[in-house]
Amino acid sequence: MQSQSWRERLYTIIFFTNTPAGKRFDTWLLIVIMASLVVVMFDSITGYRERHGMLLTGLEWGFTAIFAIEYALRIYCHPQPSRYIFSFYGLIDLLSILPAFLALLLPDAQYLLVVRSIRMLRIFRVLKLTPYLSQANYLLVALRGSKQKIIVFLLSLTTLVLIYGTLMYVIEGPANGFTSIPMSIYWAVVTLTTVGFGDIVPHTALGKSVATAVMITGYSIIAVPTGIFTAELANAMRADSLQHKCPGCAKLSHEPNAAFCSRCGSQLFERRNEQEQAQREASD
Amino acid sequence: MQSQSWRERLYTIIFFTNTPAGKRFDTWLLIVIMASLVVVMFDSITGYRERHGMLLTGLEWGFTAIFAIEYALRIYCHPQPSRYIFSFYGLIDLLSILPAFLALLLPDAQYLLVVRSIRMLRIFRVLKLTPYLSQANYLLVALRGSKQKIIVFLLSLTTLVLIYGTLMYVIEGPANGFTSIPMSIYWAVVTLTTVGFGDIVPHTALGKSVATAVMITGYSIIAVPTGIFTAELANAMRADSLQHKCPGCAKLSHEPNAAFCSRCGSQLFERRNEQEQAQREASD
Amino acid sequence: MQSQSWRERLYTIIFFTNTPAGKRFDTWLLIVIMASLVVVMFDSITGYRERHGMLLTGLEWGFTAIFAIEYALRIYCHPQPSRYIFSFYGLIDLLSILPAFLALLLPDAQYLLVVRSIRMLRIFRVLKLTPYLSQANYLLVALRGSKQKIIVFLLSLTTLVLIYGTLMYVIEGPANGFTSIPMSIYWAVVTLTTVGFGDIVPHTALGKSVATAVMITGYSIIAVPTGIFTAELANAMRADSLQHKCPGCAKLSHEPNAAFCSRCGSQLFERRNEQEQAQREASD
Amino acid sequence: MQSQSWRERLYTIIFFTNTPAGKRFDTWLLIVIMASLVVVMFDSITGYRERHGMLLTGLEWGFTAIFAIEYALRIYCHPQPSRYIFSFYGLIDLLSILPAFLALLLPDAQYLLVVRSIRMLRIFRVLKLTPYLSQANYLLVALRGSKQKIIVFLLSLTTLVLIYGTLMYVIEGPANGFTSIPMSIYWAVVTLTTVGFGDIVPHTALGKSVATAVMITGYSIIAVPTGIFTAELANAMRADSLQHKCPGCAKLSHEPNAAFCSRCGSQLFERRNEQEQAQREASD
Repeated sequence: MQSQSWRERLYTIIFFTNTPAGKRFDTWLLIVIMASLVVVMFDSITGYRERHGMLLTGLEWGFTAIFAIEYALRIYCHPQPSRYIFSFYGLIDLLSILPAFLALLLPDAQYLLVVRSIRMLRIFRVLKLTPYLSQANYLLVALRGSKQKIIVFLLSLTTLVLIYGTLMYVIEGPANGFTSIPMSIYWAVVTLTTVGFGDIVPHTALGKSVATAVMITGYSIIAVPTGIFTAELANAMRADSLQHKCPGCAKLSHEPNAAFCSRCGSQLFERRNEQEQAQREASD
Repeated sequence: MQSQSWRERLYTIIFFTNTPAGKRFDTWLLIVIMASLVVVMFDSITGYRERHGMLLTGLEWGFTAIFAIEYALRIYCHPQPSRYIFSFYGLIDLLSILPAFLALLLPDAQYLLVVRSIRMLRIFRVLKLTPYLSQANYLLVALRGSKQKIIVFLLSLTTLVLIYGTLMYVIEGPANGFTSIPMSIYWAVVTLTTVGFGDIVPHTALGKSVATAVMITGYSIIAVPTGIFTAELANAMRADSLQHKCPGCAKLSHEPNAAFCSRCGSQLFERRNEQEQAQREASD
Repeated sequence: MQSQSWRERLYTIIFFTNTPAGKRFDTWLLIVIMASLVVVMFDSITGYRERHGMLLTGLEWGFTAIFAIEYALRIYCHPQPSRYIFSFYGLIDLLSILPAFLALLLPDAQYLLVVRSIRMLRIFRVLKLTPYLSQANYLLVALRGSKQKIIVFLLSLTTLVLIYGTLMYVIEGPANGFTSIPMSIYWAVVTLTTVGFGDIVPHTALGKSVATAVMITGYSIIAVPTGIFTAELANAMRADSLQHKCPGCAKLSHEPNAAFCSRCGSQLFERRNEQEQAQREASD
Repeated sequence: MQSQSWRERLYTIIFFTNTPAGKRFDTWLLIVIMASLVVVMFDSITGYRERHGMLLTGLEWGFTAIFAIEYALRIYCHPQPSRYIFSFYGLIDLLSILPAFLALLLPDAQYLLVVRSIRMLRIFRVLKLTPYLSQANYLLVALRGSKQKIIVFLLSLTTLVLIYGTLMYVIEGPANGFTSIPMSIYWAVVTLTTVGFGDIVPHTALGKSVATAVMITGYSIIAVPTGIFTAELANAMRADSLQHKCPGCAKLSHEPNAAFCSRCGSQLFERRNEQEQAQREASD
């Protein structure tokens, strides 16, 4: 009994934030995650690694130990462990520990610990939860609504990039830095997205003309994803219909400003001043 | 009889995707197109061409042969061959074969085989067809609606680029990399579209001031095509309504299944029931 | 009499496009303008100027002569010459001739002939006139509506750029290319507008952090002018109100879907099927 | 008495612009602020500082003296000095003087005088006040409405940048300029925001593929803040309506001057005329 109740209390603390203890737990977890990210970053700077290598490695193993214990506790106290393990958060939690062990074989793998940054999305649980999630929900509804349009857009973009890239390879050639078609496609993406690194640039007059076309295309079609997303978001945010039961035919959903039912023609709302007017006229 | 029926069956397989065989045919075609694109790209990388030149050339001719046979079959089995040949897809199919033969004269022409990427638009036929096409249709309606506004915008842009480019040529001059007016116009496009390669940059104080004006212009007017397209797309998405002039109040747009006007309650359409009309006429 | 009528006919040809002769005149004018722009551009390319200098100079003076004669004719045949001279088009027409004479004193002034490109806006008169102008009108209404918001935005941008620029000058200093505050402000504009030439880049860790802030600011606030313009354009394109005379109080403008007058409460439109229904019920 | 009235008059001149003297004061203040900014900028250009160092330092101290006197006067004549001192404008006014004294210890601190540019926001008080402020208000309402969505967006962006940056560090490594994870994150921000300085660029094929993903991500998700802000701004601009629950149909938003509901015709507000109420009660 005692153990069972202890496990339940642990479950409430670790998985929920509506108790003071739960909130404190999540706040500390966030701080530890951020600290571990900072350590990973400092470890990648040559100067710091050379001077404080031992300390940084020690800290990294310390954080990994903390996250491993937390992971074990989460499995232990969850009523259905397998459900947690294969949930989105469960997989991310596992991915936050694995690279440390992988680094024993592949030295660079430790940097993949940065995947811990995804755990920082828990921050929404520490901040006031509901409004942020409902706002994120609007964004998701808009993204889901624009999915098919975005796929059509990305496929057209791919075709465009393939053709522009090859054209530049044929026109400019390896002598001007366009060493292969994949390289030219990379250049086309750099230019079309208006990033423009400048590591490869056209040198011939014809190449510059095509580059001008690529740039104006990129500058103009940025309107397309923006337009798609904005129109969908505006749709998601607008209260789309009037919810009112028609007195004639019980139709529930109407045009936003409907006065009459579009199915049976009944007036949806009674005038509230007709009786009063009658009374007033009578009393005159 | 037998041959005729075989030709009809072939027509269904090659030109439609609603049969299992037709779907399998289109899926394989897509895979072959992608494989041929990969081969063209590898052939352009010097290292691969030197080591596997024979293999790559062989594969390219193989793919060309497959596409040539497919093209011949399409002409053979289509009920009205000339209609197919001069359709958009027919011309693309021809363009997917020609560069291979052109390459016997002009070596670089083979890379134009990348035009095959346009054939990949067939992917919409393999994926669930209708929703994607209707979404692409929204985009096309919005683009068509914004055509005139976009032309006005592009002409203003052209004038702007011409004047900014010449101004920079006069201010900076050939000594600072602005070697001619066309070169300066190229720079103006690179800057106005916010690409900013950095291969040509202003060096004088006055030149930098004009460059600042160009950049802020470019950064601000990107709002114009976006605004045009978004407004048109929102319009196109809203227009999913019944277009019918209400006999009572002339309201034009109604709910898709409206029988009565939601503004004045008038019946939108007269009942054409003949018995009733007869009765009414009799009672007049 | 004869001369008067000849002048009137000339006026119709030169200033209007609704006659075949007028349309032909404007089309030829456009071709001459484009040809003169091409000559100015070729003249700025060193190679061409050296080889064909005499020819190009000759052509330029030829075009200037044509435009000068056209300008004289416009003044001659206009009923109120002074009104034409001080109109927008009149001033542009004058500016298209002046730089050629100015070039006798200042050699580089000839390139200012590019100002002729503004004359190309006449192209809207040659194309089908009305739809383009009404579309351009939407854009102008939207721009005028967003003027005050844009000024607020640009002033905030200026303050931001001044502060970011000075901060970078203090942090990076002349040793890293930020040689003065105006130079740093130029860098801030290059970065905030996402152009990113790369001729000046931060080298210190602190400088890179500030640069990150500048870039994310620039990337995010591009939403502001776009949002302003889109919202205004959508407003301009939406039929804002219902135009219908209220039977009760003669109010003319109502909410888009109003069924009742919001001033006197009268029903705006009669139900067109009530009489009919009564008849039908009577005949049953 | 005399002194009191003089202080009150000073208060009106310094803090308000609705009197001619107040407007003149604010106009002159703006000119002095701009002049002081110009002096700070010239002082940062090596050539000018060397030749006119004494003059520039003198002018700077002159401007600092003017602002110090102005600050003292503002405190002196304000009815509640502490309220002014801790207001936004009060703090900015103090910040406009401090760096000059700080510069006696830290030479570079004088450039922080650029913070005076924030004082230029007073320009809205000199220009016609109300329309600009109400427009700025729309922008603020839209920004406040989109705050939560923007935070969700920026947090997702941060996670994305951390992961992309580390990935590039692991793939490209110090040999290709990606010397540490913070450096790679800086590169990821430069690329994702489409700035693209080009000081660090990927060199391996895999690195270029990831860079392509980063660029297309950046190019696409710029739609998100734009969409959020546009939708909110359109909302803010539409909300110029009367918010009152209709007693008949619960419609919430009406025309600014509505007396009756445009959907059901109900009178929105009861007449509070007491005589009438008395009559009505009597007739009950």
